[in-house]
Amino acid sequence: MNPIKNKRTVVLLSGGLDSATTLAMARDQGFECFALAVDYGQRHDSELEAARRITSRSDVSLKIVSVDLRAIGGSALTDDISVPTELEGGIPVTYVPARNTIMLSLALGYAEVLGADNIFIGVNAVDYSGYPDCRPEYIAAYQEMAGLATKAGVEGSRIQIHTPLINLTKAEIIRHGIELGVDYSLTVSCYQADSDGRACGICDSCRIRKQGFAEASIEDPTRYASVS
Amino acid sequence: MNPIKNKRTVVLLSGGLDSATTLAMARDQGFECFALAVDYGQRHDSELEAARRITSRSDVSLKIVSVDLRAIGGSALTDDISVPTELEGGIPVTYVPARNTIMLSLALGYAEVLGADNIFIGVNAVDYSGYPDCRPEYIAAYQEMAGLATKAGVEGSRIQIHTPLINLTKAEIIRHGIELGVDYSLTVSCYQADSDGRACGICDSCRIRKQGFAEASIEDPTRYASVS
Repeated sequence: MNPIKNKRTVVLLSGGLDSATTLAMARDQGFECFALAVDYGQRHDSELEAARRITSRSDVSLKIVSVDLRAIGGSALTDDISVPTELEGGIPVTYVPARNTIMLSLALGYAEVLGADNIFIGVNAVDYSGYPDCRPEYIAAYQEMAGLATKAGVEGSRIQIHTPLINLTKAEIIRHGIELGVDYSLTVSCYQADSDGRACGICDSCRIRKQGFAEASIEDPTRYASVS
Repeated sequence: MNPIKNKRTVVLLSGGLDSATTLAMARDQGFECFALAVDYGQRHDSELEAARRITSRSDVSLKIVSVDLRAIGGSALTDDISVPTELEGGIPVTYVPARNTIMLSLALGYAEVLGADNIFIGVNAVDYSGYPDCRPEYIAAYQEMAGLATKAGVEGSRIQIHTPLINLTKAEIIRHGIELGVDYSLTVSCYQADSDGRACGICDSCRIRKQGFAEASIEDPTRYASVS
């Protein structure tokens, strides 16, 4: 049972650099894309604004699902824990418990409603800040489970989870995106961007992003809140 | 790597007969229980009221997480599709896309925050109305994925998913619950209960529940909206 999959896909879009590149790659590969952003009560609402800008420029429909992860707590991104400014060993406090598992599950439900055989997610195992749910073995196990979870699974089809960034460095992601015409000034990666979507320049995510532009020898179009 | 698991658990509680019995079983087995109800925009809010009554009677903490599944649609339980009154072949329209996958994912996040090694869920493969995400092979695949998704997985521990009802008939579930002192008059199983939590008596869920009490030879304490 390995039926030909259709070219319809849900694309998880956070509004950051990685997911904007993932969307561009899915479109470049000829997929009919339906973007899904998850509002999990993150402190940086500017992410959702970025998702809106990115999809409206590329004429892709955007669905936003709200899930209040603050109710279960446990992360600097949803709670009143300070966002760290130094890359530390191990799993950082910005890790949102089961975040990718929850986001993929919502994407799975949406894919089932759309009759889409595919999900694109911009996880990355290279510059991944130590998140357990960005590893290839996790994605493989998720796909196995998803194949059993849905009507499609019962009927012999199965969802394919695409992770085009998983083995790319941040510099390689940026180079691919630039080739595909991604406007990175629209994206927000910062863990604590201000209400205008301007980045702090000092959190983990900003540091990884900055370094990516530097290594790719591409001018960083990020709007920073101050010189940093 | 098979460390001894702690006795702390998240229990998914819908307010229905199955999950109330599952909670009673987890407590009977000596688990420290943290109930989690998911408000997925269901048409029957009385479920959540039932979850509140059940936990307050048994002195268990209840966390409610909201996720707006209406945003992605696709089910008679969240959309304006009529709830069927006859058991039909195949997967019914009351199936909520990826529902158990989404609920388990939220439970996984909560378990991680609590440091709990266990999740109890009252899925049932016997009287399960044909839902793909109630099958044992689905649960096994979920557990495999969950073991890779979290900090606990990275550190060598892993979540265990307990499904004490999976091979029981509705009558057997009811007999177990009665032995453990479950007050089924507090529970609501109906897909379209009224605002006082009174059941319709004619939807799939009501019919399966009624038949369970009849087969168990136990008087049905369900409050029905009318004689049916």
